[in-house]
This record gives sequence, C-alpha cells and structure tokens, in this order.
Amino acid sequence: MNVGRKIMLGVTLASAFMVLIIAMGSSGFVSADAPIDGILEDNFKFGKNLAVWFMLMMVAFLMIFIKKYEWGVALAVLLSAAGSFVAYLAIQDFYFDQAWDQTLMIRAVICAITLVIAIGVFLGTVKMWQYLFVGLLFAPVYAFVEWFMGSTEVLGGFAVDPGGSILVHMCAAYFGLGVALTLRRKEAFNEPQHTTTHSVSFVWLAAMILWVLWPAFVTSLLGPADIAMGTMTCYMAGIGSVISAYVVCTVVQKKVNPLIYTYAMLAGPVAIGAPLLSMDAEWAPWGALALGLIAGAISAISFIYLQPRLCKALGIVDVMGVHNLHGIGGWIGVFASALIIGSFTNVAVAIAVVAITLALGAVIGIVLRLTGGKVSEEQMFSDDADFIKNEAPSES
Amino acid sequence: MNVGRKIMLGVTLASAFMVLIIAMGSSGFVSADAPIDGILEDNFKFGKNLAVWFMLMMVAFLMIFIKKYEWGVALAVLLSAAGSFVAYLAIQDFYFDQAWDQTLMIRAVICAITLVIAIGVFLGTVKMWQYLFVGLLFAPVYAFVEWFMGSTEVLGGFAVDPGGSILVHMCAAYFGLGVALTLRRKEAFNEPQHTTTHSVSFVWLAAMILWVLWPAFVTSLLGPADIAMGTMTCYMAGIGSVISAYVVCTVVQKKVNPLIYTYAMLAGPVAIGAPLLSMDAEWAPWGALALGLIAGAISAISFIYLQPRLCKALGIVDVMGVHNLHGIGGWIGVFASALIIGSFTNVAVAIAVVAITLALGAVIGIVLRLTGGKVSEEQMFSDDADFIKNEAPSES
Amino acid sequence: MNVGRKIMLGVTLASAFMVLIIAMGSSGFVSADAPIDGILEDNFKFGKNLAVWFMLMMVAFLMIFIKKYEWGVALAVLLSAAGSFVAYLAIQDFYFDQAWDQTLMIRAVICAITLVIAIGVFLGTVKMWQYLFVGLLFAPVYAFVEWFMGSTEVLGGFAVDPGGSILVHMCAAYFGLGVALTLRRKEAFNEPQHTTTHSVSFVWLAAMILWVLWPAFVTSLLGPADIAMGTMTCYMAGIGSVISAYVVCTVVQKKVNPLIYTYAMLAGPVAIGAPLLSMDAEWAPWGALALGLIAGAISAISFIYLQPRLCKALGIVDVMGVHNLHGIGGWIGVFASALIIGSFTNVAVAIAVVAITLALGAVIGIVLRLTGGKVSEEQMFSDDADFIKNEAPSES
Repeated sequence: MNVGRKIMLGVTLASAFMVLIIAMGSSGFVSADAPIDGILEDNFKFGKNLAVWFMLMMVAFLMIFIKKYEWGVALAVLLSAAGSFVAYLAIQDFYFDQAWDQTLMIRAVICAITLVIAIGVFLGTVKMWQYLFVGLLFAPVYAFVEWFMGSTEVLGGFAVDPGGSILVHMCAAYFGLGVALTLRRKEAFNEPQHTTTHSVSFVWLAAMILWVLWPAFVTSLLGPADIAMGTMTCYMAGIGSVISAYVVCTVVQKKVNPLIYTYAMLAGPVAIGAPLLSMDAEWAPWGALALGLIAGAISAISFIYLQPRLCKALGIVDVMGVHNLHGIGGWIGVFASALIIGSFTNVAVAIAVVAITLALGAVIGIVLRLTGGKVSEEQMFSDDADFIKNEAPSES
Repeated sequence: MNVGRKIMLGVTLASAFMVLIIAMGSSGFVSADAPIDGILEDNFKFGKNLAVWFMLMMVAFLMIFIKKYEWGVALAVLLSAAGSFVAYLAIQDFYFDQAWDQTLMIRAVICAITLVIAIGVFLGTVKMWQYLFVGLLFAPVYAFVEWFMGSTEVLGGFAVDPGGSILVHMCAAYFGLGVALTLRRKEAFNEPQHTTTHSVSFVWLAAMILWVLWPAFVTSLLGPADIAMGTMTCYMAGIGSVISAYVVCTVVQKKVNPLIYTYAMLAGPVAIGAPLLSMDAEWAPWGALALGLIAGAISAISFIYLQPRLCKALGIVDVMGVHNLHGIGGWIGVFASALIIGSFTNVAVAIAVVAITLALGAVIGIVLRLTGGKVSEEQMFSDDADFIKNEAPSES
Repeated sequence: MNVGRKIMLGVTLASAFMVLIIAMGSSGFVSADAPIDGILEDNFKFGKNLAVWFMLMMVAFLMIFIKKYEWGVALAVLLSAAGSFVAYLAIQDFYFDQAWDQTLMIRAVICAITLVIAIGVFLGTVKMWQYLFVGLLFAPVYAFVEWFMGSTEVLGGFAVDPGGSILVHMCAAYFGLGVALTLRRKEAFNEPQHTTTHSVSFVWLAAMILWVLWPAFVTSLLGPADIAMGTMTCYMAGIGSVISAYVVCTVVQKKVNPLIYTYAMLAGPVAIGAPLLSMDAEWAPWGALALGLIAGAISAISFIYLQPRLCKALGIVDVMGVHNLHGIGGWIGVFASALIIGSFTNVAVAIAVVAITLALGAVIGIVLRLTGGKVSEEQMFSDDADFIKNEAPSES
C-alpha cells in the first residue's frame, strides 16, 4: 500500500515533468497569424470541444450504479482522462508537430473518452493511481491506431469512420477486453453489484445527456456542409435504439432492466459512426432509423445472452458490459458501412484494430498486474478503499 | 398483459416499417448544394438543436420526484419523444416535402418536447408502451396546430408566438387535459406521491438547467438580429418568476413547497414566449422582468388554489400540475402580447388551439383507454410494474 | 419570523419596482441597427452566455453536500443570482448607459456567479430572503470593482485578468469573508455537516461539469483570435489540478476527502484566469499544465492545513471552503501572471480588490446581521426552516 503510493507519486511526477521538459523543447505550435476565416471556423468547433468533454464526464455517471462504488468511478474517470489527454497532446506536439487548435483539442478529448469507455471493462479491479498510469500508457496506443486508420491504403483503401465506430468504440471495447484478459481479476465475478434507486437515476441522467450530445461528438471534426447530415443520421439512429431496446427488453425479459436499457439505447449512435455520411441523401434519415432499430435490438440481446457466455468463456468480467454496447455496436456500424459503400475495407480495418488493441491492451494489463499488486476482494468496487466519508454516525 | 405486449410490439414495428416504407418513396430532401452562407446559418442552429433536446430530457427530471416512480418517468419521456419525433418528421418529409436542415430538426424536437410536457398531466396512469403509441398519435395533432397557427389570416391576422406560449405550452397543457378527461383514472387521486430529499434534488437540478437553456429554445428559430433581444427578455422574465414565486410561496404557505417553486420559477419563460420580441426596445428587459414577476406569482397561486379546485371539478388529477405552469403561463403570455401589440388575434388563436387540442386529446384519451385495458392502482406511479431491480436484499 | 417575512416582501417589491421605474426612464439601449458582422459576433457569444449560467447553477450543486440542507442551497443560489443580476443590469443600463447585447448579459451573469461563489462562505447562516437582499447589495460592489479594475492606470498600469482570477474569484472569496467576519455566526462551528453518498455524488457531478464548461467562462469576453489559446490553457490547467489534487490528498491524508478533491481539482482553472493569454505561445499549454499542478496541490493543502487555522484565527466558519479554492487559487494566478508579464501591477490591483471587498463585505455583513435577527442553531443549515416536505410517514 505504502509502496504503491510511492510508485504512484513517482510515476505521476516523473510523467508530468517528462512531458514538460520534452514539450518545452518543441517549437511553433500556436497558429498566431492564421487568417480570420480559419479562426472563425476553428471557433465554431469550440462548443463541440466542450460537448465532448461533457460526454466524457457523463460516461462516469453512466457507470456509477454500484451502490458502494460511486465516487471511485468519478475519480477513476478524471484520472484516466487526465493521463491520456496530456500524454496524447505531448505525442502530437512533440512527435507530430501539430498546431494547437480546437481540432487538436477535440482529437485529444476523443482519445481520453475512448479510454474512459475502455476502463469500464475492468473498472473497480485495479488501484486508483493506476487509472492515471493507464492513461499515460493508452495515449500512444490510441495515437498509433489513429495514425494507422489514416494510412490504410495498404489495405486497399481508406477507412470510412467519421463518427468513430472503429476508432473510438471498437478500440475502447477491445483495448479494455485486452487489459482484462491479462489482468485476471476473477474475484470480480463475486461482486453482487447492488444498486439503489438514485444510483440508477444518475445512470438515466447520464444516458439521456449522452444521447443528446452525441451529434456534437460525431460531427466535431466535420466540415460545415456535412454537419446537418451528421446531426440528422445520429439522432435518427438514436431514436431507433431508444425504441428497439425497449421492445427487446420488454419482450425478452418481461420487464426492463434499466442497466441494459440505458446502455442499449445508445447503440444506434455507436453504430451510425461509420456510415454517418455514407447513405444516399434521399433516404439517409430513415436508413439511420432502421440501423438504430437494429443496433438497439442486437445490443440489448447481447447484454442478455452474449454477456454471461462471453464472460464465462474468457474467464473475465466485463464490468460495465462495454462490449455489448461499443464492441457489438461498432461491428454493426462496420458491416452497415461496408454494405452501403460496397467495399470491405472498413471490415479489414476493424479486424486489424481489434487485433492491435487486444494485443496492446493485454500487454498493458500485464503491466497493471505487475505494478498494482494484489487487490483484495473487499477493495474491489469499493469507495471505502480510497475515500474519507463523513456520514452521520446513526446511519449506514 | 401478454396481449398488451403483443399489441405494443405490433404497433411499434408496424409504425416503424410504415414510416420507413412511406418515406423511402419521397424525394430530394437534403439540400446538398445549398450556398455556404445558408450552411453557416444552419450550422449556428446546431447548438440550439442540442439544447432543446437537453431541455426535453430535463423535463423528465422535473417530473421525477415520486419516490417509487423515477425510472418510469425517464422511460416514458424517451418513448413519447421517440414516437412523436419520428412521426412528425415523416409527416414533414412525406406530406410537406420539407428539406432536412437544423430548422426542421428543431421543429421536430419542439414537437417532441410539447408531448413530453403534455404527458405530465396523465403520467403514471397508462401502460408504458402507450407512451410510444401516444407519440405517434400526437405528431399529426401538433403538425396540424402548427400549420393552423401559420395560416390564421382567417382570424383577422397572424398569431405572434416566437417563443411558443401557444404552440408549445398551451398545446401541451390542454392536449394533456383532453387525454386525462377521457382516460378517467380516478384512482390517481389516491396516490400520496411521497418524495425523498434526493428525488426532489433532481427536480431542482432539472428546473435550474431548464431555466438556463430556455433562451436556446425561444430563439432557436429566430434570425440573427433577434437573438440578443430574445435572450434578454427570456432571462429577465425568468429572473422575475424566480423572485415572485419565492415571495408568493413564502407569504401564502409560510414555507416553500419545492414542487411548486421549481415549476413556478419557470412561468416567466413560459409567458414571455408570445411577447418575446414585441416590447419596445427602450424598456423590453424591464417589461419582461415585470411580466416574469406577474407570471411567477400567478403560477404559484394557481398551484396552491386553482389545482385542487380544477382537479375536483374535472374529476381528474393533473399529476405534474402542468396546467398551472404551461396553461396559466401560456394565457399570461397571450394576454400580455395582445395588450402590447394592441390586437386580440393571439387571444382568438389561443382559444382555437385550446379547443382543438382539448378535443383531439379527448379522442386520443379514448384510444388509450380502449387499447390500454385496466391499469390497476398498484401499477400506477410504480417502477415495479416495468423494471427489474437489483437492490441489496437487506434493504428496501 | 412574521416581521422578517414582511421585511422581505417589502424589500423585494420595493427593489423590483424601483428598478422598473428608474430603468424605464433611461433610453436607447438596444442596438437595433447594428451591422450584420457585429450581430454575428454577438450571436457567437450566445452559447457562452448560457454556459456561464449553467456553471452558476452547478455552483449550487457543488455546495449541496450537507445532508439536511440541500434544497436551501439551490434556492439561496437562485435568489442571490436573481438579485445581483437585476441590480447589476439596472446599474449598467441607468448609470453607465450600456447597450443590451450578449456581452452585457455575460458581464451580468459573471457578477451573479461571483456572488453565488461568495455566499458559500456564509451559506446556511442567514435567513432565506437575505440571499435576495444581498444580491441587491452586492451588485454595486461588483460594478465598482469592475470599474476600478478597468481604471487602474493610477496604479501604474492595467490589470491583466481575462479569466477573472481577481475580478471573480478573489472578489468572491474576500467579499464572502468580509460578510462572515461581521455576521459572526459562531454557532456554525457546531454543525457536523454530515453527508450522504448521493449528496456527494451531486457534488462530483457539479465539479465535473464546472471543469468542462470553464473555458466558456474564461473566453466569454475574448475576441475570436484568443479563444483557442484560452480554451487550451484553461483545460491544461484543469488537467494539472485534477492530477495534483489527487496526489496531495492521497499522500497527505492516505485517502481522498471528496469534499476537498472536488474543489481543489478546480484550482487550476481558477489560477489560470489572470495569466490565461500571457504565456509564450511556444510553451503556453505546458506552462498552464505546470500552473495547474501547482494550484491543485496548494489548494488541497490549504483545505487540509490552512482552513482550520484560518477559521479559528478569524473566529468564523468558511462553510464551503471558498477561500481555499477561490482565494488561494486567485493569489496563485496573480503571482503567476506577475512573474510571466514581469510587472507587479496585478499584485497591487489584487491587494486593492481584497481591501475593497473585505471592507464592503464587512459593511454588508453588518446590514445582514441587523436585518436578519437571530438565526437559531437549528435553523442553520436546515431545509426544515424553509421548506414543506412530503416524505412517506414510515421513513425518516
């Protein structure tokens, strides 16, 4: 414990200083004399930058349902976002010499939100300081995948993924699974994950706000002429999964499990990421609605039938069911876009990204296992391990 | 129950497919070669589109105070929004041949938020799948009212309602009352509607965010030159009702009932909808403040004195007190604008809209009654009817 | 009690009418024939106007952790915001003849948020109506400080404070301390301030949203060319304090006190206010990160070590620890900017602002003490004093 804290302190300070020293040596990254048109177009992205950050924080509340593990989720999200955001920007500044504009900031927060989604797979099974640490380790993985997806001529064409079905969602799901596979915290199976009415009400709040802000995310890097189309297909896909997730939950399980519904209702926006702009303008909104209906249904079915089987087969717990929303939703987007475009480049790219993120995730899982030591079962999913509480003595 | 579920499944799928098939036959709805100026002006509306959706979700949390009925409110809001949004867009695309831009999307979400306000009158007294169903039924009603308000030369002039006092708020209140009148769930009178500290804290959160985002709603369809005025009068009216609702609650009831205050503090923004841009620029903000002071006071008084009498007289429960905020607030806006403009067209239009929505609401209430079957008293206002819970066994 | 209510009623109505009457006499404040470029630039500020209001409401939830005092915090925030917003606009309209555009509205909400921060020092120790009253009294103080900071040639140069380290944060902290010093509610020391899991989860939510929206606040009055820089340095400073506040809390106290962390994680954005745009573009983001690391650490240390000593020395309770975030964070910003710019004007201005706000706060504290009468110990920090509750009889 004491050793862990010292390691944490060392890693944090070392990383911070390393980043500082390296970066100060770099040059010319603020475009001071950009033309006014460029400035205004950059300014327009300001609101979307904030919206994606807002979504990142809402992901914390989407995962806050475990009764005895609420504050830990919030802190883990903040630390993993901080680590990955800073490390990604250091890479872009120092290695790729990128200019510091809203676009770069948005790319950095998208890197961070990808990790925040990914930690959902193993949330509550590592030590708190390791969320900051995994942020520093994830940034190069993400930067590599991003670079790879922009360089896929080798695979016979470019990936088409304006809304991040592959780059964000599949990357998150399979990186998280890779980590969990080598982290091997089987004790997580024993956690009953009891909820309270209000802990789940926070999840409803988060899911609804994520749903609302999603068009800001998928259109954040688009040019002016594509924004209406991206907004429209995103919302229509979202409407589709709001409806079909409800129908599937009710028909299959008789009652709605809110922890399935609040996730599956987001499957449309996940799946629309790749084919966001590819449909024929004539029927794009209705095609997006159909895609959302399909994605919501399949995601809900995955939570109900696939999740227990997959976890048993792999010997791990996907704590937040990340794969059922982001993995499955991503695959739906990939296949839909391949069918619409008539090219299977996206499928090839997706397979490659899954392989890369699983492998690198597994390596990082080993690092987390080696540095984190044994996390006891009562430390898992427990705010008591990390937080001072000040409740009235007469109450629990 | 089983029959209900089958009906639900049938209605949902049928509606979704109908919409898909019909719409695919239509043509040319994305303005692909719009000039760049139009694109940028359309892009500027992007943030407001998302803000109105954000408000729609916050309406759910404004109604989430009943201790044993929280998740059901959230799901009901999502389903009624989904149904009305899709059906409204199908009408606009297929029947009116509208182009798909931010303006159309905003009009569609305003249709949806109108229904979400309206269901507050009878929330918790119909079956869950019926919220989706009522969305499909409400969209043509709203599209008709919207068309009617844009065609009121017959009444001697055009309605003036940039911020939706009539189109949104009165339409919502009287449609909801119309439904409740023929739905006749008198058992709702027996519900004690117990709250908890945090269920009401969510209501505070929602009311405050709604108050903040309101200018995005009232200015969402305005041209650039009117936005500052609309923002200013909206916030000043809001400040007025924040103050006067507090004074009235404290003076009349000695202590503040938070479920009255959090609603009445929004009466200014409701009332300013019609006269949003009609006041003389010399004194517009202060006139808006005065209107807000009046609206907040009258709305709070309506909650305290009018609500019990009206419900008793009509034999129905207005569950969320929708009429005291949106009905009364709407009337204040209508009369204020008539006085300021010096024309009673708005009053005539409002009376017509009340008649139309009450009548069509009553028809839809009968449809809900016939399709929904008997909702038992313990199914009312109860999450247990629709949701799987996973609470710790030792606690309630 | 009854007398208090009458006073409240009188003060409120008198203020409202006074404002109305005075203001109606003024002239020409809406720029109706502004050129289109000016209108579009003004429109661009619309989103930031709403974002600052959103932050204002989130400050309420940042302070909502006391188990038996949640709704009172929300209402106190609304009333103090309403009072200061209206009174500030009356001053700007009547005395300074300002045009009513988004800029003026933003300046007014920044005045209001400054007071909302300030009441954190003495929250729960005055009567509810006094929050509205203190709003009316604070507005001239703020307008004077704002005018003073724009007129500091007398001190040898202009203050440099684009992001409000002095004008907002130090003004809030020292005005609040000034009030508390003469209000003298020593009984506040006896309040145990017990929390619940969810009351603190609301605080996490508020802190995270405040962190996200902060760039809208610091860039709200900047020109287009400075927005990217302001966004970037603000977020980097925020990342710094997210990291260092965690490290300090864990190393010093072994576990994290969430009511320290959620405040200290915002110290970077507070401190970056003054030097927001002053750093060399070459290393600005990394300099901001370093400043955030320092600010988060010092703020957390202030909560742990300075707060108990300062409160004991002054004989007052800084209820929300405002000074540890806004006072200390402000000083860090002031000294950082002085070092970077190479001029100590900011330090001189900050000292003058501290003296002014402490003195005027103390005067207003006396007014609150004289008008508020004796607040009994059980009325302090208690929703029971002001609100009607409707909980189920069988539960607490």
